Amino acid sequence: MRAAVMRNKKLVVDDIATPAPGPGEALVKTLACGICGSDLHALKHAEKLVEGARRSGGPFVMDLKRDIVMGHEFCAEVIDYGPQTQRHFKPGARVCAMPVLIRASGVETVGYSNEHPGGYGEFMRLTEKLLLEVPNGLPTERAALTEPLAVGYHAVAKARMEKDDAPLVIGCGPVGLAVIAALKLRGVHPIVAADFSPRRRALAQQMGADVVVDPKEKSPYQSWRELAAYKDPAQAPQLPPWMPGPALRPAVIFECVGVPGVIETIMAAAPAHARMVVVGVCMERDHIEPLFGINKELNLQFVLGYTGEEFAATLRNLAEGTVNGDPLVTGKVGVEGVAQAFEDLASPERHAKILVEPWRS
Amino acid sequence: MRAAVMRNKKLVVDDIATPAPGPGEALVKTLACGICGSDLHALKHAEKLVEGARRSGGPFVMDLKRDIVMGHEFCAEVIDYGPQTQRHFKPGARVCAMPVLIRASGVETVGYSNEHPGGYGEFMRLTEKLLLEVPNGLPTERAALTEPLAVGYHAVAKARMEKDDAPLVIGCGPVGLAVIAALKLRGVHPIVAADFSPRRRALAQQMGADVVVDPKEKSPYQSWRELAAYKDPAQAPQLPPWMPGPALRPAVIFECVGVPGVIETIMAAAPAHARMVVVGVCMERDHIEPLFGINKELNLQFVLGYTGEEFAATLRNLAEGTVNGDPLVTGKVGVEGVAQAFEDLASPERHAKILVEPWRS
Repeated sequence: MRAAVMRNKKLVVDDIATPAPGPGEALVKTLACGICGSDLHALKHAEKLVEGARRSGGPFVMDLKRDIVMGHEFCAEVIDYGPQTQRHFKPGARVCAMPVLIRASGVETVGYSNEHPGGYGEFMRLTEKLLLEVPNGLPTERAALTEPLAVGYHAVAKARMEKDDAPLVIGCGPVGLAVIAALKLRGVHPIVAADFSPRRRALAQQMGADVVVDPKEKSPYQSWRELAAYKDPAQAPQLPPWMPGPALRPAVIFECVGVPGVIETIMAAAPAHARMVVVGVCMERDHIEPLFGINKELNLQFVLGYTGEEFAATLRNLAEGTVNGDPLVTGKVGVEGVAQAFEDLASPERHAKILVEPWRS
Repeated sequence: MRAAVMRNKKLVVDDIATPAPGPGEALVKTLACGICGSDLHALKHAEKLVEGARRSGGPFVMDLKRDIVMGHEFCAEVIDYGPQTQRHFKPGARVCAMPVLIRASGVETVGYSNEHPGGYGEFMRLTEKLLLEVPNGLPTERAALTEPLAVGYHAVAKARMEKDDAPLVIGCGPVGLAVIAALKLRGVHPIVAADFSPRRRALAQQMGADVVVDPKEKSPYQSWRELAAYKDPAQAPQLPPWMPGPALRPAVIFECVGVPGVIETIMAAAPAHARMVVVGVCMERDHIEPLFGINKELNLQFVLGYTGEEFAATLRNLAEGTVNGDPLVTGKVGVEGVAQAFEDLASPERHAKILVEPWRS
């Protein structure tokens, strides 16, 4: 099959072996697959990714000397099945699935693996019992947004938002936009979002941000404070006496940038008792100033991925139209265009999400 | 009055002005005051403390060119009152209080301040409405443990322990010992605690640790895993498919060391979904590897101090004997002995908590 292959830390197009479905697995044809920021990171910081995963017991342990076909945000079509399958969905059915294989030997990833090619190739093998049928009428390119939007849905779920919580989204790339969509779905307001890029601020508004801030013009934290101040200070929760300050709604700050220094910057600027949800994936070692956390009793929740229920709920929300991911998609390419798309995605003004359609000529 | 004064980053004994109680304030005579690890830090890293506090909006902003009398873990005797006071406690009454002054201009600290001397001097001014009478029969040296034990009580409260949570305490200095006491009070078991010092491991057992670990002999995380494994895996909570692993009770890890590198070491070794409570006060900039947090969805809760309710509850618990802090006290000195006590406390084998009794000859 044709695929965009990561080989020697470069993306090349080649003909490689079509994956054979094992026991309990389906063979599917990739219809569309989004390019994720993590893939850009993985191409640029492959060794760090693998080394960090190995040290932390994470899922992304690959042999970089061998081929890897990335792509984990896919919508696909059922072609055939391996042994010991129920064949529940007929060939031709469109499906989404979490990008993992559940095998007798354990769980393996699809798309960050030497064994299991992801959606930048024409075919994939997927675990049958993880397949979710795409509801009739939901276009393929929208269904392919299930995975990235599920990341935002999960991040907001892990934030355990309460009634008065006031969110601030730092960074409006695809991760930040997915968080905004999930906050909107949950009815949390006002949603304050910050990004240096005018294009991304416009996308943030389309996805549901109530207020967007250009950090070059004004501090996002100041904008947030103005909006989060209690009109009636008597409503405010009690803080310990050495933590005075204006009566503010509890801050929940989503870190959606994922480059070194951002966590510390947020810790320095956050109001007392803020909860930070680290959704951005920083693959390099980073600095923090513990005193910032201590003096303000900050909470940091690191998040990754989503649960099966959250993934299925996101596909349902897309089908029902309660979440609209359309503004995210800013381009489409075939396998030949993947390498260029990775370069184009470096510019926040040009693109948010590019879909790979491997069968596109 | 006589006091052990921090002057030019050294501790010297001198006669200084006795503080005058302002409106709403009492003049008290210090009966006993514990030496806190934060004071050791403050003497050694004064500039970093002040700089970090200034940047993070924290409470410890002092002018290091002027005298500072530290000491914030005190039991005292009421002597007199300033204007606009209720004079609720008679002169001679023994009291404890949170080490802060609540003034019209805002909240100020006692003991990390150029204006308000702490318990390493013979007298202090305290806010009248924060005074708590020491219940009859509770010895002064036990009452003086209210403050350090309240720190552990607060840390365990912020950890929001749930039924199945299994704690691990890293570091058994006074902070770790206070956390162990609070865990025991809450009936959480088993309490696993680690420290390199045999003396501190023995103290940890006296305070309530069920299992103590010498990290030179065995990994504390391995010891914890053996004890936290579910006997019946069906009881275990579901993890996402890419986070396999043995069925373990949720980990709550208390960082009670407070030196650079410890947070990262815990993040590297923690099991998936662990909650970390950072109680140790690291005053230097530190490294973390965000991937450790991301791959395991760790949560970091930084904590500081306690609420008024937690402070009062701790004094009550000491009086009722549900918490016993006696093993903590390993020495007593007068003001002349404070400088030497600071040096002695550097050795974990010799001391845990030294009480300053300023009137001791």
